[in-house]
Amino acid sequence: MSNDMDPPASSHTVDPKADQVRLPRGFTAHVGNIGIKDQTNDFLVVVSEVPCAASAVFTKSRFAGPSIVVSREHAADHQLQAVTVISKNANVATGIPGENNARELVKLVSESTALPESSILVASTGVIGRQYPMDRIRSYLGADSQLRLEGLPAVRVAEAMMTTDTHPKVAMATVGDATIVGVAKGVGMIEPDMATMLAFVFTDAAIDATTLDTTFRSVVGRTFNSLSVDTDTSTSDTAAVLANGLAGSVDRTEFAAALEAVCLNLTLQLASDGEGATKLLTVTVTGARDDDQAKRVAKAILNSPLVKTAVHGADPNWGRVAMAIGKCSDETDIDPDHVAISFGGTEVYPNDPGESGLAALEDYLRGDSVEVQADLGIANGRWTVYGCDLSDGYVRINADYTT
Amino acid sequence: MSNDMDPPASSHTVDPKADQVRLPRGFTAHVGNIGIKDQTNDFLVVVSEVPCAASAVFTKSRFAGPSIVVSREHAADHQLQAVTVISKNANVATGIPGENNARELVKLVSESTALPESSILVASTGVIGRQYPMDRIRSYLGADSQLRLEGLPAVRVAEAMMTTDTHPKVAMATVGDATIVGVAKGVGMIEPDMATMLAFVFTDAAIDATTLDTTFRSVVGRTFNSLSVDTDTSTSDTAAVLANGLAGSVDRTEFAAALEAVCLNLTLQLASDGEGATKLLTVTVTGARDDDQAKRVAKAILNSPLVKTAVHGADPNWGRVAMAIGKCSDETDIDPDHVAISFGGTEVYPNDPGESGLAALEDYLRGDSVEVQADLGIANGRWTVYGCDLSDGYVRINADYTT
Repeated sequence: MSNDMDPPASSHTVDPKADQVRLPRGFTAHVGNIGIKDQTNDFLVVVSEVPCAASAVFTKSRFAGPSIVVSREHAADHQLQAVTVISKNANVATGIPGENNARELVKLVSESTALPESSILVASTGVIGRQYPMDRIRSYLGADSQLRLEGLPAVRVAEAMMTTDTHPKVAMATVGDATIVGVAKGVGMIEPDMATMLAFVFTDAAIDATTLDTTFRSVVGRTFNSLSVDTDTSTSDTAAVLANGLAGSVDRTEFAAALEAVCLNLTLQLASDGEGATKLLTVTVTGARDDDQAKRVAKAILNSPLVKTAVHGADPNWGRVAMAIGKCSDETDIDPDHVAISFGGTEVYPNDPGESGLAALEDYLRGDSVEVQADLGIANGRWTVYGCDLSDGYVRINADYTT
Repeated sequence: MSNDMDPPASSHTVDPKADQVRLPRGFTAHVGNIGIKDQTNDFLVVVSEVPCAASAVFTKSRFAGPSIVVSREHAADHQLQAVTVISKNANVATGIPGENNARELVKLVSESTALPESSILVASTGVIGRQYPMDRIRSYLGADSQLRLEGLPAVRVAEAMMTTDTHPKVAMATVGDATIVGVAKGVGMIEPDMATMLAFVFTDAAIDATTLDTTFRSVVGRTFNSLSVDTDTSTSDTAAVLANGLAGSVDRTEFAAALEAVCLNLTLQLASDGEGATKLLTVTVTGARDDDQAKRVAKAILNSPLVKTAVHGADPNWGRVAMAIGKCSDETDIDPDHVAISFGGTEVYPNDPGESGLAALEDYLRGDSVEVQADLGIANGRWTVYGCDLSDGYVRINADYTT
């Protein structure tokens, strides 16, 4: 596997080469403005010229919207040929009219792409509790009998999905003769729960649907599902991979590694662009009873508002990391006497770094990427999770989103 | 039972009558400045002239400090006669020296009050990971052989425990000839877990230790343990009630109601004074499978940063309440078609309040107390939880607390 990207762990901007990233062979796209909320692009269709092996995972929210309901049906046979996205309206908590609207949207896209409805995945994010402006959707999709599809740069595809994202998120890797291109969106309401945000990965690798599904679910667990911006799980999370096979077969192990590199890169971009975020925050827990315990404790640290605000303020207040570990009160095998806490590799507990050590830590915390490590001293379980600091910007963005 | 207070559900100031509230008969106190952090009072001792029946509950944090360890030992026999508090230093994550310091503090208080060490409860909150300044503590407590104890106003007692609290928290109720006076502190790192914040309740009612313990644990579950400011559970949470019996026996049912009124009042004061809070947020879930489910869903709504910021911005974005209910994905009996959501008694889902209804809701949300109700439509379980909005003030307070 060769990997065309440098995971931008400490960068808030998209990979500079992303402008040149195009969808893999056989994939074309349409982007446009329906006028859901404003004049920015809010409509996307990506089409493969041949049917694709596919895997998709969805939010477990009890308030999942009709896009999720319809897409679950369509992805059940692990065969898809197109993805369509409406942004700026989630079509969630909209009742029977909302489900009818989702099915009519898919029907209109089916007619204007000449693809079966069941081969189309539909996703939608934005405000909850409002109906789609169906008159505008009908007039947009009914205007031409055939939708104009082009080999667009992947950033244009990613842009069409954005809501409060500050930049489009694209990642690419190559494996054998094939390429894997992923696009994602999401900045708030992000703690994917066994599913993920809107993230779509397109590849021309030939890979059977069963292998693709197993590989994708495993990768999603270590990447998108290890991401939390604000502990709030979206009603619309969807991640899917479509493999059209036009580049021929590839080594499965190399494919899995390349797919994970793309998904991890998108995860880091999502974390860095979390609402109001000024820093990427990575938390790794080692020495846990098992990987699951490591993940629970890592999430408790990553999601602590007191840890997140301390990181925002470049305050080496490691006692808050101890507090966050301590509040995992069900983990009765955690003993403070066996725990070690570090920032960026510098131990702060139990070995006190001293005055000069704390000053150096403040410098470290002023950077745009902060790593917290905690070793529980129990066994060999480990997990890494990804998020961001909590700033007044997060509050300002979310104190007046709909009004 | 007569109840001397008006629960200040919509007030950020302490009950105006609180200045006149004194400790119940037989209780005296000492407050002073040891110089833990600054010149404000940081040391408190409350003493009863006779031994008290007592009940105490503590944090379940795995990083609980030595104050908790020592106090658990001393409260085990349900007999206490004094409470001592150091504020501005939590004495947590301080290892063996920290435990030795906690025991030396108790010994010094024992010597200067002529009470057995085992009758003294000790509590401490403030920064984590720093040793007490033992030289200052020794010099303060060694200065006189006897500590000066007075019948102080309860606000002076509450003030001596404050860290970033903006005002002291006091509540009082009467039952028969007895009075119940409670004091509490805490504004951040507040999501008590089967225990509570620093809250002490003193009464001259005569009540046996077993009844007191059962009653107190039940009351704590509905009051302090239903409070969350920021989902972060303190390493130092302690709540205790001391009953010295000097007012004679009282009706048990009336006592339980009066005790709950005092604890609920303190809980509302703690919620309203949450770090950066501009509003009290109360969430009631009804129609749940059982009370436990109601509490879990209510906490998910109360703790959602997106709900909290919408409340802060007076934004009637009820979709975020739907999202927060939805993310309780383990509650598989929740069906969006049976859920109803209201703000202050006005239904917003499924019955849309319309444009004028939403405008009225914005006015409601601009008030200083906001109630969210959700009915799950399953059975009769219900629970109410208490918290506050999330403001840029919370971020600013916590971005530079130690430095």
